Amino acid sequence: MGGDLAPEVVVKGAVMALGSIDSDSRIVLYGDADAIRALLAKEGCVEEQFEIVATSEVVEMGDHPVRAFQQKRDSSIVVGFQHLAEGKIDGLASAGSTGAIMVGSTQVVKVIEGVIRPAISTVVPTVMGTPVMILDVGLNVDCRPDILEQYALIGSIYAESVLGVKSPRVALLNIGTEATKGNFQSKEAYELLQVGSESGRYNFVGNVEASHIFTSKVADVVVCDGFVGNTILKLCEGLYAINDTIGTTNSFLEGFNYESIGGTPVLGVNAPVIIGHGKSTAKAVKSMILSTEQAIRAKISERLSEAFK
Amino acid sequence: MGGDLAPEVVVKGAVMALGSIDSDSRIVLYGDADAIRALLAKEGCVEEQFEIVATSEVVEMGDHPVRAFQQKRDSSIVVGFQHLAEGKIDGLASAGSTGAIMVGSTQVVKVIEGVIRPAISTVVPTVMGTPVMILDVGLNVDCRPDILEQYALIGSIYAESVLGVKSPRVALLNIGTEATKGNFQSKEAYELLQVGSESGRYNFVGNVEASHIFTSKVADVVVCDGFVGNTILKLCEGLYAINDTIGTTNSFLEGFNYESIGGTPVLGVNAPVIIGHGKSTAKAVKSMILSTEQAIRAKISERLSEAFK
Repeated sequence: MGGDLAPEVVVKGAVMALGSIDSDSRIVLYGDADAIRALLAKEGCVEEQFEIVATSEVVEMGDHPVRAFQQKRDSSIVVGFQHLAEGKIDGLASAGSTGAIMVGSTQVVKVIEGVIRPAISTVVPTVMGTPVMILDVGLNVDCRPDILEQYALIGSIYAESVLGVKSPRVALLNIGTEATKGNFQSKEAYELLQVGSESGRYNFVGNVEASHIFTSKVADVVVCDGFVGNTILKLCEGLYAINDTIGTTNSFLEGFNYESIGGTPVLGVNAPVIIGHGKSTAKAVKSMILSTEQAIRAKISERLSEAFK
Repeated sequence: MGGDLAPEVVVKGAVMALGSIDSDSRIVLYGDADAIRALLAKEGCVEEQFEIVATSEVVEMGDHPVRAFQQKRDSSIVVGFQHLAEGKIDGLASAGSTGAIMVGSTQVVKVIEGVIRPAISTVVPTVMGTPVMILDVGLNVDCRPDILEQYALIGSIYAESVLGVKSPRVALLNIGTEATKGNFQSKEAYELLQVGSESGRYNFVGNVEASHIFTSKVADVVVCDGFVGNTILKLCEGLYAINDTIGTTNSFLEGFNYESIGGTPVLGVNAPVIIGHGKSTAKAVKSMILSTEQAIRAKISERLSEAFK
């Protein structure tokens, strides 16, 4: 288990998740077994409700992600990804080093055949209450148009199977609604998305401007490159923090509190992986575990593999 | 005069501006002279307080900007830009067709020698009350790193001379604070900005993440490409609209009401030009006129010409 506040909040979050997961789901905890057992006892929790896998090393935030996988073979993140690749577990959530999680996702669990580059995504709140999914939000900061086109398919499948949105409306983030608007990347992506939509891969509804993401009137899935997507998320986080500073509450921006967002799914790899915020609280860890369970039950990776065959 | 609500609100805004401009400034109104006179009378205003230039044609939003300049020679926008190029007026503000204003700026007034591409910028509110300038916000959606480097100089000069910020802190919008973060464009721009800063062109302080734009703790000038800058503005406008929808007021987001923002300066051309929102109200027109006067008095174009020599 990782994250700035591990293992305390991770164990606490796992205990909180216990009451919400299905009876045939099992939570496996990777980390310092003695510490985990002590914390479970403190929570008044019978340790048999979990599976505990003892690991002795810790990947620090300063560790080089690739080297960490070579050198810290007995860390929770390395053992966890091995188990995931071997099918001993069905999904993995971690608030540890994002770099190490990405190495695990792409090098151990591996990218689904046919997917050019995996994406990370975030489900954001909207005024209407229906979720909107944005991808990519920071993994691919230089996106070729054909990668954006694939994100439409990935996002559409996730929104339909995990979020339960029927025939999700997929839009391209752009600075105007007309097809001819935007930069080289978005203009070319628009054309590819039209072709993909006509062939029935997904339901492309055109461009969406940033002003209309959170109304959910235009789209259920918003496709953009990781530089822009990450900027959108950071801006919202910043505005949430400002509300805090000026003492205003805002039920809408409240949704950008990372505690409410159940982590960031890595999409396009062979098993569900969810990245948590380094500062994840117990509540955030709980959301992350539940999101992972949802993704497993929705068979998201199998569906994506099928779609990219 | 242009804009969705012209000429009524434009005349009204000009009358409102009259009380705030310097005694030796003159406002010149271009448009249907009879309509302007009737509106001035309605406002109880002596028409001699203005100069009126009668024009007989109107550039419509649907008109092709370049063709409008060839075919509608007697429209307010075409005559206004000719007068600006000839020095009959010192600055121009318009809420008319943005495309036509850009044609006038680049083809009639012309780009300052040495400037690769002009920029449009917006001064946004911040929590601390000090303004922050973002450029580009939509003109150059495919920005080469050397164009971003020039925007640092342009923004720095504007912030210092028009906004009165001493030795403005210039930052590059990025998705992390470290020098190695970002996409190809931002990594290369970072290096150029370091060189420019070392040679004393401006005070480059490094990367700024979108979450920290509105605290003004990091930078006074934020440099980004037009796609990202426009997305940031649209997102803020959208969040402002959401506050309206959910019935929350937020003193901070209120600042993104376009009525409060005095138009969008076109920077890097040989005279001050300010683009207003098509839906500009009288209050917005007033702000726009005052911003234009400020830019004229600050000799912004002369300063930029000097800097790019």
